[in-house]
Amino acid sequence: MAVVVTGIAELTTNDEELGTLSGAALVIDRGRIAWVGPAAQAPAADDRVDIEGRAALPGWVDSHTHLVFAGDRTAEFGARMAGRPYSAGGIAVTVDATRAATDEELSAVLQRHTVEAVSQGTTYLETKTGYGLTVEDELRSAVLAGQFADEVTFLGAHLVPPGSDADEYVELVCGKMIDTVAPFVQWADVFCETGAFDEDQSRAVLQAAKEHGLGLRVHGNQLGAGPGVRLAVEMGAASVDHCTYLTPSDVDALAGSDTVATLLPACDLSTRQPLPDARALIEAGASIALASNCNPGSSYTSSMAFCVATAVLQMRLSVEEAVRAATLGGAQALRRPDVGVLRPGARADIHVLDAPSVTHLAYRPGVPLTYAVWRKGFRVR
Amino acid sequence: MAVVVTGIAELTTNDEELGTLSGAALVIDRGRIAWVGPAAQAPAADDRVDIEGRAALPGWVDSHTHLVFAGDRTAEFGARMAGRPYSAGGIAVTVDATRAATDEELSAVLQRHTVEAVSQGTTYLETKTGYGLTVEDELRSAVLAGQFADEVTFLGAHLVPPGSDADEYVELVCGKMIDTVAPFVQWADVFCETGAFDEDQSRAVLQAAKEHGLGLRVHGNQLGAGPGVRLAVEMGAASVDHCTYLTPSDVDALAGSDTVATLLPACDLSTRQPLPDARALIEAGASIALASNCNPGSSYTSSMAFCVATAVLQMRLSVEEAVRAATLGGAQALRRPDVGVLRPGARADIHVLDAPSVTHLAYRPGVPLTYAVWRKGFRVR
Ligand SMILES: [Zn+2]
Ligand SMILES: [Zn+2]
Repeated sequence: MAVVVTGIAELTTNDEELGTLSGAALVIDRGRIAWVGPAAQAPAADDRVDIEGRAALPGWVDSHTHLVFAGDRTAEFGARMAGRPYSAGGIAVTVDATRAATDEELSAVLQRHTVEAVSQGTTYLETKTGYGLTVEDELRSAVLAGQFADEVTFLGAHLVPPGSDADEYVELVCGKMIDTVAPFVQWADVFCETGAFDEDQSRAVLQAAKEHGLGLRVHGNQLGAGPGVRLAVEMGAASVDHCTYLTPSDVDALAGSDTVATLLPACDLSTRQPLPDARALIEAGASIALASNCNPGSSYTSSMAFCVATAVLQMRLSVEEAVRAATLGGAQALRRPDVGVLRPGARADIHVLDAPSVTHLAYRPGVPLTYAVWRKGFRVR
Repeated sequence: MAVVVTGIAELTTNDEELGTLSGAALVIDRGRIAWVGPAAQAPAADDRVDIEGRAALPGWVDSHTHLVFAGDRTAEFGARMAGRPYSAGGIAVTVDATRAATDEELSAVLQRHTVEAVSQGTTYLETKTGYGLTVEDELRSAVLAGQFADEVTFLGAHLVPPGSDADEYVELVCGKMIDTVAPFVQWADVFCETGAFDEDQSRAVLQAAKEHGLGLRVHGNQLGAGPGVRLAVEMGAASVDHCTYLTPSDVDALAGSDTVATLLPACDLSTRQPLPDARALIEAGASIALASNCNPGSSYTSSMAFCVATAVLQMRLSVEEAVRAATLGGAQALRRPDVGVLRPGARADIHVLDAPSVTHLAYRPGVPLTYAVWRKGFRVR
């Protein structure tokens, strides 16, 4: 059953030829976009939805979240903001709680957060393992994640479990753990940072992932200008995420590569770090994505609109650049040509704003602007 | 008909003796809070609402908005963010559109934005004139504002209308304009800033307002460390708003006064100005409020939650300090002892979050967290 959506005051397609249309319509058929064009030329369809002068854009592609978790770190966050001492165990607190949770508890967390994300316009979602850190718990995390997320990343190399030897743990990750988890995930990732995994350990994880046919991602340059970006480019990773601290040669390396720089501004704000230099990346010609990094420790938001508003108001992106980074940029970071774009053949993932233009996403920060959402052609809000 | 609200996991009362309660209940009766205490001791009532482990707090008191406007400045905002040249007329564009609008058009704008604010937890709202700038248009703005806002401020001294002489215009404001408008407003305000009104002109406006029995407010220190704060304190204003640029002596003056420093972080971000030094004000002992400054030029948001999140993440307020500034602080800036607080006798203005604690307002930036709202004892969401 085909549906024609009319009354689109402003249609952001992210397609080079279609561009941004005024007074547009589009047709959804069997989960895909079947037609895009001027409202006056819209073909007939079985059903018709008039969005009455609102803006439509591709649904958010949130290419970086950590939603397989249990436990509560609200008090740790509150204490950090108040400058009060708090005996926080950081990620290890979440690891303990995640291991102790039942499958049903973890599924409930995944469901609650994916529903919350979709209701705010996210239509394509990546999530990661990384709070299990045993073969069994990483496997379980990957299987559960696959029931809710569009893409799943294996992040056994999130941190060295307390009490373990780093090199022995890397051996486990690159051996039995990845052998077991690989069939259930599309990607592997490593936290390449002082205090987590060093350059050689990170390279070993990425090499093992490559041998298992997985796509590569890297957490890098979050706390300092470490080797993460260089390594990601060297290994042909699809994305290097955080990029809070970059040297000029990191920027050049990204610009000369297919590796997307995925920026996580809500994380930087939530940890009171500086915001990344998005302008330098854009001016150099690097591809950027914006993602939420939704997780209970360093960035507990699912609001891509907040990331877009922050990127415009505080990282000097234009609205168009920020919206593109949160849709097409995320799709590039996940190497999915059929999402983050609204053209015939693309997945019918459509976000309608209760506003006449995407500019309102930054012009009206914090105001909930999601009016309607289609995901895979189904209206889910 | 009395209603008992139970299942309050965390109840922020802003009352010195009641403090913040866990496992609480409260009773609403004839628009007022009739009882607050532990859930186990809650009295019987005609009706009962269980909020099932959520947090409740006083509704937001948004003590600074400009909602009597017409026209569209979206393109001006977009160009500013993109660094594109734009022949913007600033406030004068809104003045022209407001004068040209019908009463029905202005009412529709007021209604849309007040409904939007209430649906996000704002239960007490101030708004201003200031886009009329003739006797007739300021009068009309005040009368229309009074149909939607809890408090109305006369801001004839918003700017000198293009083509007018500043001193002649101040004479009009202090004469026929205030004579005409005063019966319809509670407050008068002046934009004391280079390019708007200087110290002497501002003092004359405030003096005239005092003689008409109006409470005083000042827009000051937005673009530089001008005389606004000093003048507000000297004249006994209830509030001086913006305070983006403060000298140490401004901070001391505020600390030694009853004048509230009302901070407008969404405005500072939307104009890419620095954020005010809220910590210096708090450490010195000054009272602060947080408000949206919702207006189509410099800060087009109605989201008090965004202001609270920004204050915590970027202005180093604790969550408790920021929530207090956006509720009790606003009430102090409007000199209303019966709002911004939940204790017997206070107005039953209650905001329930879809979260177990107020910490989530900063922990989950951008996520719409408003679950229920009572305003004057009526459930409006
Ligand atoms: Zn991450
Ligand atoms: Zn203002």
